[in-house]
Amino acid sequence: MQFRQNTEPTVWVLGRANVDFYVHNPEDSLQDSGMFEKSVGGSAANIAAGLAKLGRSVELLSKVSDDSFGHFVLSFLKQANVGTRFVRKDASGSLTSLAFAERRKENSRVLFYRNRASDLMISLPDVPISEIEQGSVLVVTGTGLSASPSREATLFAMEAAGNAGTKVVFDLDWRASAWSSMEEAGLVYRMAAALSHIIIGTREEMDVLIAPGSGTGAKTGRITDSAAVSDEYITERFLGNTTEMIVIKNGIKGSVAYGPGGNFWTAGIFPVEVKKNYGAGDAFAAAFLHGLLDSRAPDEAMRWGAAAAAIVVSGSGCAASSPSGLELQKFLLESKEVC
Amino acid sequence: MQFRQNTEPTVWVLGRANVDFYVHNPEDSLQDSGMFEKSVGGSAANIAAGLAKLGRSVELLSKVSDDSFGHFVLSFLKQANVGTRFVRKDASGSLTSLAFAERRKENSRVLFYRNRASDLMISLPDVPISEIEQGSVLVVTGTGLSASPSREATLFAMEAAGNAGTKVVFDLDWRASAWSSMEEAGLVYRMAAALSHIIIGTREEMDVLIAPGSGTGAKTGRITDSAAVSDEYITERFLGNTTEMIVIKNGIKGSVAYGPGGNFWTAGIFPVEVKKNYGAGDAFAAAFLHGLLDSRAPDEAMRWGAAAAAIVVSGSGCAASSPSGLELQKFLLESKEVC
Amino acid sequence: MQFRQNTEPTVWVLGRANVDFYVHNPEDSLQDSGMFEKSVGGSAANIAAGLAKLGRSVELLSKVSDDSFGHFVLSFLKQANVGTRFVRKDASGSLTSLAFAERRKENSRVLFYRNRASDLMISLPDVPISEIEQGSVLVVTGTGLSASPSREATLFAMEAAGNAGTKVVFDLDWRASAWSSMEEAGLVYRMAAALSHIIIGTREEMDVLIAPGSGTGAKTGRITDSAAVSDEYITERFLGNTTEMIVIKNGIKGSVAYGPGGNFWTAGIFPVEVKKNYGAGDAFAAAFLHGLLDSRAPDEAMRWGAAAAAIVVSGSGCAASSPSGLELQKFLLESKEVC
Amino acid sequence: MQFRQNTEPTVWVLGRANVDFYVHNPEDSLQDSGMFEKSVGGSAANIAAGLAKLGRSVELLSKVSDDSFGHFVLSFLKQANVGTRFVRKDASGSLTSLAFAERRKENSRVLFYRNRASDLMISLPDVPISEIEQGSVLVVTGTGLSASPSREATLFAMEAAGNAGTKVVFDLDWRASAWSSMEEAGLVYRMAAALSHIIIGTREEMDVLIAPGSGTGAKTGRITDSAAVSDEYITERFLGNTTEMIVIKNGIKGSVAYGPGGNFWTAGIFPVEVKKNYGAGDAFAAAFLHGLLDSRAPDEAMRWGAAAAAIVVSGSGCAASSPSGLELQKFLLESKEVC
Repeated sequence: MQFRQNTEPTVWVLGRANVDFYVHNPEDSLQDSGMFEKSVGGSAANIAAGLAKLGRSVELLSKVSDDSFGHFVLSFLKQANVGTRFVRKDASGSLTSLAFAERRKENSRVLFYRNRASDLMISLPDVPISEIEQGSVLVVTGTGLSASPSREATLFAMEAAGNAGTKVVFDLDWRASAWSSMEEAGLVYRMAAALSHIIIGTREEMDVLIAPGSGTGAKTGRITDSAAVSDEYITERFLGNTTEMIVIKNGIKGSVAYGPGGNFWTAGIFPVEVKKNYGAGDAFAAAFLHGLLDSRAPDEAMRWGAAAAAIVVSGSGCAASSPSGLELQKFLLESKEVC
Repeated sequence: MQFRQNTEPTVWVLGRANVDFYVHNPEDSLQDSGMFEKSVGGSAANIAAGLAKLGRSVELLSKVSDDSFGHFVLSFLKQANVGTRFVRKDASGSLTSLAFAERRKENSRVLFYRNRASDLMISLPDVPISEIEQGSVLVVTGTGLSASPSREATLFAMEAAGNAGTKVVFDLDWRASAWSSMEEAGLVYRMAAALSHIIIGTREEMDVLIAPGSGTGAKTGRITDSAAVSDEYITERFLGNTTEMIVIKNGIKGSVAYGPGGNFWTAGIFPVEVKKNYGAGDAFAAAFLHGLLDSRAPDEAMRWGAAAAAIVVSGSGCAASSPSGLELQKFLLESKEVC
Repeated sequence: MQFRQNTEPTVWVLGRANVDFYVHNPEDSLQDSGMFEKSVGGSAANIAAGLAKLGRSVELLSKVSDDSFGHFVLSFLKQANVGTRFVRKDASGSLTSLAFAERRKENSRVLFYRNRASDLMISLPDVPISEIEQGSVLVVTGTGLSASPSREATLFAMEAAGNAGTKVVFDLDWRASAWSSMEEAGLVYRMAAALSHIIIGTREEMDVLIAPGSGTGAKTGRITDSAAVSDEYITERFLGNTTEMIVIKNGIKGSVAYGPGGNFWTAGIFPVEVKKNYGAGDAFAAAFLHGLLDSRAPDEAMRWGAAAAAIVVSGSGCAASSPSGLELQKFLLESKEVC
Repeated sequence: MQFRQNTEPTVWVLGRANVDFYVHNPEDSLQDSGMFEKSVGGSAANIAAGLAKLGRSVELLSKVSDDSFGHFVLSFLKQANVGTRFVRKDASGSLTSLAFAERRKENSRVLFYRNRASDLMISLPDVPISEIEQGSVLVVTGTGLSASPSREATLFAMEAAGNAGTKVVFDLDWRASAWSSMEEAGLVYRMAAALSHIIIGTREEMDVLIAPGSGTGAKTGRITDSAAVSDEYITERFLGNTTEMIVIKNGIKGSVAYGPGGNFWTAGIFPVEVKKNYGAGDAFAAAFLHGLLDSRAPDEAMRWGAAAAAIVVSGSGCAASSPSGLELQKFLLESKEVC
């Protein structure tokens, strides 16, 4: 994939930056835990911080509240070398999103505080079109599409970027609780997909792209049963026009990148002791994109993504444990990929 | 254009049905007028009624309030032979939209009452997908795209119709007051255009499709000055993929329909004594579509549209004065088109 | 009752000014009527205009939209000699309230358009406390109490007026459709009653003061059945402390004013041919208050009120047909009261 | 003060139950702290838990979200022997309030998450009037008055309780951040005060009762400068009619209870090492009310309140460290009051 060269910042990330509160003791539930650890999260913030740690010049476009938690997020981003010129402080009564999370190895509950969330207040006039048009890449994630005015601002930025030759990366990042219905999510995801050069998601997230999932596929473009939603169906329907690559993450089975003309590339994963099941997706996106920007082939870039994901899930914190370039290379040298 | 045959209803129209109040004395302003005439309006209701009068089987998808005005709208539609199975009565506190209008020959003011409007409450679950998928045509107009949840419901219906082979007609019907910004309107109009087989609008409404209008067109897809927004620019950018025809209405200069491969067709207008400057667009859309469904060439269909528009602006009322098939043919025989 | 003397303006009226649309033909229903007559209405506007026509210096405190209808209201008030320094134009997207009304002799339907109504946007900072504190009387009506922020602004003005020696008149003006529940209305009406020197209402409106109406009156202050809500119950419960007079209007049976110490005064009505059943209450309030300000005894003031009400219901329009002082005196001389 | 005897539950508490998050390390700021301790808070929940621990039969009337945090609150209340029949789980999208708090000895910051808070969703139909009418006491706190529909529900419960002979205790519990303006708070506090038998507040909170604070006190009931807001002014203005006692807490100078006829009672405080500056007010209210219900004189009841406050501020947690009856008596025996 060809990216615009010598840009500064290279990558724009648009979306949520929030405060995460993890249960201190991994065995505890949200209800029972008496102690919580605070850190910065939000998929957009995580991806931006991950890219910055890998040495990329990155600018985040978001909103936070003008209070202790908003200042905490801003301060973290600055320390992480993420550009914050466009992380505005909203004084309209919105609040920085919170995510309270369990740390079990599976079925961890997450409780979001997102009533009148600052990051969903990003609106069309907040989008610095003429700057984004000069970047190499714009990264957006699904949460920013979940409600107005952030939904329209995100689509607007994607469209402008694409028209100007800035590549658009769409990390599906599906969270059912953020959406009023699966039908609405499917509709908006397809609008966004049509504006994206690269679409990244798990196998399950691909189902959102074709929601609602009932009907007679042949005639309607909808599908009868989930078996029908093969990778082939997804790529046939969504590759082409704007979309040049679809990356499907299959959990422990590794990932596949599909390109035009039936081309595809695969990568495995790096088995590690999982300390938490968060942050893997954001780390993958950051390192994968880092690889593509470094002119690596899709399979090598995915291997970088898988390595970063492994490093994050075996550490604590989301953005905090994401690797530097050196750490990533060291891990790749020392670890064994499993296909 | 090929439409699915032998469908019942043939045409689905989705959008606003409201109550119009016209000043009784054409010279009076809204502020000064002491007397107002009540009738049914709303572009979707007008188009539906126009098609029904021309003999088409048509079903309106809308919402009205469960009160005297909502019942008035429903009663009018039934008398006009418009199907109302999906014109739901909303009891959530919404109110049927009102439009108060002057009747000057130009610069007529219109005052809308649209706070919590019933027609903007149409939501995804209200859309009878499996029925629309069996129609020949789905017609939507710009107003239904102006706010959520109607915006998403409209896009959802368009997408489903298109996937199923039902042709989608998008009448731009731009009203600045219905939108929070030109930027947002432009964005949503382009999303809708990508799902439309036929796009109909005035020369001015085409500008909304490319809003915001500043920037360097070559690089960004945006354009530097309005001179650049030639018909060529519009057709080059929006014809293709889904869109098979763009109809541009140039007022007294007539109209042009553009198709793929550089094809285009023109039609003139029929000079009449204008009694009001409303309803022409809706009458045009109904009769034009009636012509296409009758397998007429685009130029003849546009001539039918122009004739219906002339009949409406020289009569009183919007839907009320739209012609039957016989009246339309009589007018075409007796009147002289000016190119 | 003693009022502060030599004040300018003498009377402050706080509340709704709106546009009324009456069916042109008295036999027509809202649904069927094709023609509507436009005029200014709203109980506060009507009372203010009534007082102005009777020669009182009066200032209205309200909000209208900054459009043709808001300008129409302002223009009417100025012509009617009502002070409009505090009738602000709201540009936040609110709309001047509309009332569409039938003109049957009974059971006339009224349809209100009051979603985001301008008059309900009156808020605490809009209340010119230091000016109201210098007036003789502040008149408020029930509608202004129906929703926030107008509710709090109204109570705030009443409290400040009372503390400063400005007499507070509360016209109950009950409209079920304006309230979310009878329980809430009852609660707020009692809060307002405790701040009022004079309470005016129909027999039925007095029931709102004691809603909810079930329970065991002896213990709870609530009442078991409507028979128990005698005038005695109402006066015993609400006269005293601040409230010096309660005026109960019994329709064709005339009206009674209750004062402290078991005092009461009665007045009859003036039989006329009723052309519409609107505006009587507002006309009564204006002329009754005019009488009290003229140091008339309560029975004479009520007779003035009854005469003004008779004049209005036998004319057309609400504020438009309210009498001047001369017209009122002429009517009183020529007409015969029925007790 | 005479309370209804032999009631079950004895005390109803209406208002907020929320989740508190305290910084783990007392020196840390909200922004810097990496660790937070979770507990149940909210003045209503604290007072209810305090009364239950002192052996009173108490029922809380509140709303929580139907999620891990709402369940945590419910579970805590049950363990604390607080009746939860009327702590409803709200499934409308509201969220249990959160309070993030520093633990400095002074100027501790608190950050509230209260956008669409569950406890502010308590509405009139939620209030079990006929049950509250049989209790001895209804306790409400200021936060419940800050927004609709909780505001109206609280006033409704107070009014019904008072009419039925259930004593109403109003703990002012003023939080500027919960209110849109001081003017509105003052207005609503005075409405509530007029329905209260006992008013409890700090010296500063008494200022809210007379806000806005500018103007000419003599004429308007408002006051020129804060020096004028003496205890005498407050008691003269608010004692009488319904209000039988006003308790003013003067921090380290102790507290004074004023009754009718110029009567007053004083109490000192118990010096302890302060670990946090929270919970003292709620503990005071609970133990003071416990004393009154035990037929103690106001000065002895205030001493119980002061002792409970001292015990709480020298412990950790709010509700968690409130004393049992035995602990309270032991503390009173062993500690020395300072006047």
